[in-house]
Amino acid sequence: MRQTGLFTKTAKNVPKDEVAKNAILLIRAGYIDKVMAGVYSLLPLGLLTIERINAVIREEMQRIGGVELLLTSLQNPDVWKKTSRWEGDVWFKSVINSGGETGFGWTQEEEIAALMRSHIQSYKDLPRSLFQIQTKFRNEERAKSGIMRGREFLMKDLYSFHSSENDLSHFYEECAIGYERIFARVGLGISTYRTVASGGAFAKYSHEFQTLCEAGEDIIYVHEGKKIAVNKEVCTNEVLADLGIARTELTEHKAIEVGNIFKLGARFSEPLGLLFTDEKGERKPVLMGSYGIGPGRVMGAIVETHADERGLLWPEEVSPFHYHLILIGSKRTEVRARADALYAALKARGKRVFYDDREDVQAGEKFADAELLGFPEAIIVSEKTLQEDRYEVKERRGGGSRSFREQELIG
Amino acid sequence: MRQTGLFTKTAKNVPKDEVAKNAILLIRAGYIDKVMAGVYSLLPLGLLTIERINAVIREEMQRIGGVELLLTSLQNPDVWKKTSRWEGDVWFKSVINSGGETGFGWTQEEEIAALMRSHIQSYKDLPRSLFQIQTKFRNEERAKSGIMRGREFLMKDLYSFHSSENDLSHFYEECAIGYERIFARVGLGISTYRTVASGGAFAKYSHEFQTLCEAGEDIIYVHEGKKIAVNKEVCTNEVLADLGIARTELTEHKAIEVGNIFKLGARFSEPLGLLFTDEKGERKPVLMGSYGIGPGRVMGAIVETHADERGLLWPEEVSPFHYHLILIGSKRTEVRARADALYAALKARGKRVFYDDREDVQAGEKFADAELLGFPEAIIVSEKTLQEDRYEVKERRGGGSRSFREQELIG
Repeated sequence: MRQTGLFTKTAKNVPKDEVAKNAILLIRAGYIDKVMAGVYSLLPLGLLTIERINAVIREEMQRIGGVELLLTSLQNPDVWKKTSRWEGDVWFKSVINSGGETGFGWTQEEEIAALMRSHIQSYKDLPRSLFQIQTKFRNEERAKSGIMRGREFLMKDLYSFHSSENDLSHFYEECAIGYERIFARVGLGISTYRTVASGGAFAKYSHEFQTLCEAGEDIIYVHEGKKIAVNKEVCTNEVLADLGIARTELTEHKAIEVGNIFKLGARFSEPLGLLFTDEKGERKPVLMGSYGIGPGRVMGAIVETHADERGLLWPEEVSPFHYHLILIGSKRTEVRARADALYAALKARGKRVFYDDREDVQAGEKFADAELLGFPEAIIVSEKTLQEDRYEVKERRGGGSRSFREQELIG
Repeated sequence: MRQTGLFTKTAKNVPKDEVAKNAILLIRAGYIDKVMAGVYSLLPLGLLTIERINAVIREEMQRIGGVELLLTSLQNPDVWKKTSRWEGDVWFKSVINSGGETGFGWTQEEEIAALMRSHIQSYKDLPRSLFQIQTKFRNEERAKSGIMRGREFLMKDLYSFHSSENDLSHFYEECAIGYERIFARVGLGISTYRTVASGGAFAKYSHEFQTLCEAGEDIIYVHEGKKIAVNKEVCTNEVLADLGIARTELTEHKAIEVGNIFKLGARFSEPLGLLFTDEKGERKPVLMGSYGIGPGRVMGAIVETHADERGLLWPEEVSPFHYHLILIGSKRTEVRARADALYAALKARGKRVFYDDREDVQAGEKFADAELLGFPEAIIVSEKTLQEDRYEVKERRGGGSRSFREQELIG
């Protein structure tokens, strides 16, 4: 992508009304825009970043057998009344002009359980796992952590359907491992802990995936040796005994919940009549699990844990571009021609290149923009390049730089 | 994709409460599910189809310079009050728990004009064109045409920004040609007409792209020779004189609006203060255009115009799969092994294959399902395949069949 083809401009100043590091940097760099409290649009660079995060999530969900679909936002109240979840402050609700009311989905257990009634009849139709990446709406009382707690946000939600507790437990563990792969790939592996949380009626515990981060709203107790954690809300002596760990081995941290997995059992299938016929001909409720990851929250957590005082800093796998090609001395035809040619050659090799081809911008401003935008490597093309026939490549993370011949770069 | 990995089941019966051909067939084939009136979820096959339609739209919008972003659904009322569009029945509105109200986006001129105030300062920042593919919400009084008029639906909306009327007109025509390429590629080229419609305050006319279809809700008058049409609402003698056509040359048709393009001029930029400085240093409102296509409506129109009494029938470019590989006599190990091997070989060549690997299903049911699902070509693997070392390939559209050796198929 050429920077002259991108409409967004970077900003030096901290946007008013923002306190979260993630929102401040992402707005300054032109990745997102604030529409109102807790509501952010994705500008082109932000959308590219989210799509790379989504691609990782999608791949790992397909690897464990998940099939993608897209449920609706508008929800049918009749279905939610059966599970007693139509009440509550979390909803955005609205009247339907032709009569009745609707609400905007904030999770989708009811809709998918109702759907699956037409598609699951016998144990032979099980297990199944389905997921979507969809915009969710929650009428949050406070929205203060930038893109990490919004009123409108993307969610990957996967739902699984099983004929036995054993099969549900097996899939639950497979999904947990899939989640660990996702967080490792997007650069949150070291800072993210599988965290014991409250389980609800069916299971003793559920698990959250918590990323250590000062801007997080949760408190967790981390056991470094076992690489697990316990949410403060459930950190009782009984739970610690269950896990075989002593309170003295734990350290307290602030953290942000980037994912969670729940065994739901028959909580939704029973009231909604999602039943199957087992091997003996008996009708039983299908056992369900639900598994969420917020791609926007993941993006926010990456910013909170990787960015530095100079700007954003993306791990390779989620960065919208790999190279930030910087043209210095753009008025000299030969220099520009050289940069144009390198851009074309790198793109032809399938490299993801952002090309700062702007004419009336000083070198200092271009370098500052490159640090703010945060792609892994900058390539500088200048007069010096012509003289020495080498390109300077500067690493965003360490700041180190080396020079390369064109052939070495294009590979 | 293996059919045993897909949870959806086809249905023989017409779903109750549906009258539209598109919804009846898509529900029976397991592409979509009805949540309530005018609200349909996309099941895996439906999502794959929409994604192929979106890929065509995205490619053609990028070809004319469009850059993708993703605006929000939740809208800030303050912005809409400035253009006097906060009132009106089209909205789904909702209270915000912490105070105030919001509405769910049904179009996005206001949001994007407000956004661009931070990014357009001078004529040097123009022109720009931005698009998104996003879920929209409209509180429709009646929702009766299946997925062609929903309360929740996908929309590709592109907005363009210009410093002169001339530049706007130039882009408007480029976009119209891009739209014609899109409709040709998705199989609606022959049946879709660029149709003169009312223009609003800035331009005399706008244009709709209308696909001839008995289920359409619009009436248009078609001029076959010029391959243009006029919407009944504006088909006055004055308009016909403008276009240089006589009423006698026109034929009346029902049609569905699959796209539209509008010159907005300063209708939104002026009240929202989206101004630029021109070459002489004068501040002027940016001139805008907006350009919509409904991918779901396109999908519905394809069903209405291509499907036959046996089921769906997808043009190659939008079909979720090219081959429907049908295993007959699945209990004989050698036959199944042969089908498995062909499936793997075709996939390895990058072919898009749907594999009916089900065991307890009769040949007749498999053939009926293949016709209902509507992929371009079926490949039949049976005992006969082993005996003759040839595969029967049956074309969905014409019904003709030919036999091929494996090497010819894999190519």
